[in-house]
Amino acid sequence: MTRPSLVVIGVEGLPEIVAGARLGELLAATAPLEAGDVVVVTQKIVSKAEDRVVAVDPSDPGAKRRLAESEATRVLRRRGDLVITETRHGFVCANSGVDVSNVEAGSAVLLPVDPDRSARGIRDAVRALRGVEVGVVISDTFGRAWRRGLVDVAIGCAGIAAVVDLRGTLDGSGRMLAATEMCVADEIAAAAELVMGKSAHVPVAIVRGVDRAWLRESSVAAEIIRPYGEDLFR
Amino acid sequence: MTRPSLVVIGVEGLPEIVAGARLGELLAATAPLEAGDVVVVTQKIVSKAEDRVVAVDPSDPGAKRRLAESEATRVLRRRGDLVITETRHGFVCANSGVDVSNVEAGSAVLLPVDPDRSARGIRDAVRALRGVEVGVVISDTFGRAWRRGLVDVAIGCAGIAAVVDLRGTLDGSGRMLAATEMCVADEIAAAAELVMGKSAHVPVAIVRGVDRAWLRESSVAAEIIRPYGEDLFR
Repeated sequence: MTRPSLVVIGVEGLPEIVAGARLGELLAATAPLEAGDVVVVTQKIVSKAEDRVVAVDPSDPGAKRRLAESEATRVLRRRGDLVITETRHGFVCANSGVDVSNVEAGSAVLLPVDPDRSARGIRDAVRALRGVEVGVVISDTFGRAWRRGLVDVAIGCAGIAAVVDLRGTLDGSGRMLAATEMCVADEIAAAAELVMGKSAHVPVAIVRGVDRAWLRESSVAAEIIRPYGEDLFR
Repeated sequence: MTRPSLVVIGVEGLPEIVAGARLGELLAATAPLEAGDVVVVTQKIVSKAEDRVVAVDPSDPGAKRRLAESEATRVLRRRGDLVITETRHGFVCANSGVDVSNVEAGSAVLLPVDPDRSARGIRDAVRALRGVEVGVVISDTFGRAWRRGLVDVAIGCAGIAAVVDLRGTLDGSGRMLAATEMCVADEIAAAAELVMGKSAHVPVAIVRGVDRAWLRESSVAAEIIRPYGEDLFR
């Protein structure tokens, strides 16, 4: 009546991550990783390790908005101090992903320069030090059009499919399925968030049991970012 | 190093669901449910049980688009035969959620009239027949603005929070967190999809291990649907 399942395991007890921290080596040394696992790492600690922390004047109410705009290639919407922007990576999100929570007052955390590269670095370190092939997803918390509430999505990945194309496969009636391209990287990020919480010091989770066929080279930039000309909502 | 985890269990072996099927009784009788589980049920079998199947002429290429428009309160975008619509429920999705895959040729499946009510019905049946309190999420596969690939989201829920408001809680630095309202119902639907696949006859999954504080009355209509006037992208 049930079939093989998926397990999501929160990883806690990591040291405070500071600039220069080698996340891949740290996870290889401490996380209980197995071949075929997908390791989900929140953007915040990736950005801190990569020294993407900048000073903001906490007495200047517009400072965060200006910082967000400086990180954007396009401003889609404005409401008060909130701006919905497109980042250099092509992400559409609030305030260009600039974050002032969970950091010291007077500082803000920017997105990694190249989150797919960050993911590859962690994957390569785990492969080199532990000899196991894992997938890596870098996750961040984004809002959505039309729906309230935030969800974690993938901003970078390595060794795990971003989008799985089920077009051309047969459905249960033997008919060809029309476009059913599932964004499994976003679904993995969402699943991981369910054990992470926002203040529980669980910045990493292991998703164990994904379809082995999804473990392939991929990137968020190539597979998830919808080009401007293809997008109906920019 | 690790903390209590989440398990996602696919439920297979259900009989073919036809109009009039009593899904809650079926799941109460056959699925290995425990108190605190969240049962994720795909829209397709809910709609079939509720007889939301209509005839479409397979030789008429515009039939599906006209059906989608008849189910919509607003058309947001058009591209070829694809329409992005707002449904009576307030969902923004492709073709008003009308689906012709996994159904017999010449028929299409519409969304449930009230998916929150569908979820309550399943929850109530499980409570009555098994004596356990579970959460229920009705899931469907939606596209998104700005990002390629589809993800499963919640279109109805009962006994599980749709959105968890973490505003006002302290972050790891002891500072108040700004708006961090996580849409856990959507994240639960996404996690479930990872074991469901699209043609594997797994229309139900159990998500075990969610935060017990999330097990409360809720609804997608009240908590996730963003009112028109609040939405920046309609």
